[in-house]
Amino acid sequence: MNNKIGHTRWVIPEGYIPPGSHGPAPEFTSHEAFCVLNTNETDAHLAVTIYYTDRDPVGPYRLTVAARRTKHFRFNNLNDPEPIPLGTSYSSVIESDVPIIVQHTRLDSRQSENALMTTIAYPCPN
Amino acid sequence: MNNKIGHTRWVIPEGYIPPGSHGPAPEFTSHEAFCVLNTNETDAHLAVTIYYTDRDPVGPYRLTVAARRTKHFRFNNLNDPEPIPLGTSYSSVIESDVPIIVQHTRLDSRQSENALMTTIAYPCPN
Amino acid sequence: MNNKIGHTRWVIPEGYIPPGSHGPAPEFTSHEAFCVLNTNETDAHLAVTIYYTDRDPVGPYRLTVAARRTKHFRFNNLNDPEPIPLGTSYSSVIESDVPIIVQHTRLDSRQSENALMTTIAYPCPN
Amino acid sequence: MNNKIGHTRWVIPEGYIPPGSHGPAPEFTSHEAFCVLNTNETDAHLAVTIYYTDRDPVGPYRLTVAARRTKHFRFNNLNDPEPIPLGTSYSSVIESDVPIIVQHTRLDSRQSENALMTTIAYPCPN
Repeated sequence: MNNKIGHTRWVIPEGYIPPGSHGPAPEFTSHEAFCVLNTNETDAHLAVTIYYTDRDPVGPYRLTVAARRTKHFRFNNLNDPEPIPLGTSYSSVIESDVPIIVQHTRLDSRQSENALMTTIAYPCPN
Repeated sequence: MNNKIGHTRWVIPEGYIPPGSHGPAPEFTSHEAFCVLNTNETDAHLAVTIYYTDRDPVGPYRLTVAARRTKHFRFNNLNDPEPIPLGTSYSSVIESDVPIIVQHTRLDSRQSENALMTTIAYPCPN
Repeated sequence: MNNKIGHTRWVIPEGYIPPGSHGPAPEFTSHEAFCVLNTNETDAHLAVTIYYTDRDPVGPYRLTVAARRTKHFRFNNLNDPEPIPLGTSYSSVIESDVPIIVQHTRLDSRQSENALMTTIAYPCPN
Repeated sequence: MNNKIGHTRWVIPEGYIPPGSHGPAPEFTSHEAFCVLNTNETDAHLAVTIYYTDRDPVGPYRLTVAARRTKHFRFNNLNDPEPIPLGTSYSSVIESDVPIIVQHTRLDSRQSENALMTTIAYPCPN
């Protein structure tokens, strides 16, 4: 397979980790995730920047997706340099040293039945 | 970071603010939102136009997203030049003087459990 | 505003009208919709073709969106040349004589709480 | 109609078949689906590759969408060369010998009310 699938910079304008959950953890813990596919023969080194409404951006969060692997990251679990506060509006920019593809998903279980939403992230022209 | 991320005109064809809500306000108030990320070093000045089914477009609604900030706007809260009526079909065009990225989200809590949907808005070629 | 916003052909691969509903009609009737924005100074004349799994495509369904207006069409309500059967997989291709922007939404109220999903449709290069 | 609609390679980074369901099968069985439209006058021969987090990609899964037909495939039902385990993160790459259009949908009925999400898949430039 042609290894050059995707883009090296992606944006997710919507971000909000619902504060509260119903159902067994971790499956039903309210969360936001970004799913990354790396079809390359080399590892993808990611740098994630989190933007806020009322303070400077935070990052980079450094993550790795191995060659020919997918990884579904929860924003809830980012903690270096600092965790993302719950119940707070944010946006994210995901940069990689090789082309990747990114999808955004939220599971909201604040009420007793969960709700889902998803979209392919916005790919910046290479 | 390269500041030229995004587009200066975005479209959201779907628009409908559900008339009615369950759960505590404002988190569970039924709403439609557009989330804007401005990665530029300068503020983004937005002009939003609302299109209707049976009358002329209304706008511009003028909004600002500060440099290197995100802002999640609820259509429910737009009120100058006039509020958007609940339970009414509309579309929106969001224009900015600098490139931005826009995502559309609806939370519908008319029934006792909320439902969610999201999509990256349609970016018009620059 | 520049009137040339959008594309003249859009595709929605997913199509399925849930057979059954809970809650008051028409708001909570299970439905699939495509929302069309026409920013042009002239009416948009649409030709919709419905594709099925096991028989020939059906169409065109002819619809109009007035100049500078939006219209949210329910697939449930298409009936000329024939209605779309409930509980059946289909896809749609939406063509217009002027550029438009299209978004796909489903409300599923088969169970007692409704579920929502949406996406910008696939724009074919002009 | 111009037959060259779509792309020959599509990516869905998000993949997770919820392990558990409520409601009558098969409509309410938790599932992930990819809906394919083939507007060509010839059959589309698909090769699907599934990527995982911690092992090598699996595939190709070979599928066909007849000329001028749509087909909604459930990932749950793929089984040659092997089924996709439930409750496991994966991604998919869908390749075709003719241009197609692909949309991703999940129905999650693990809780008593179902949740839905959808997005047009990511089209790789032809």
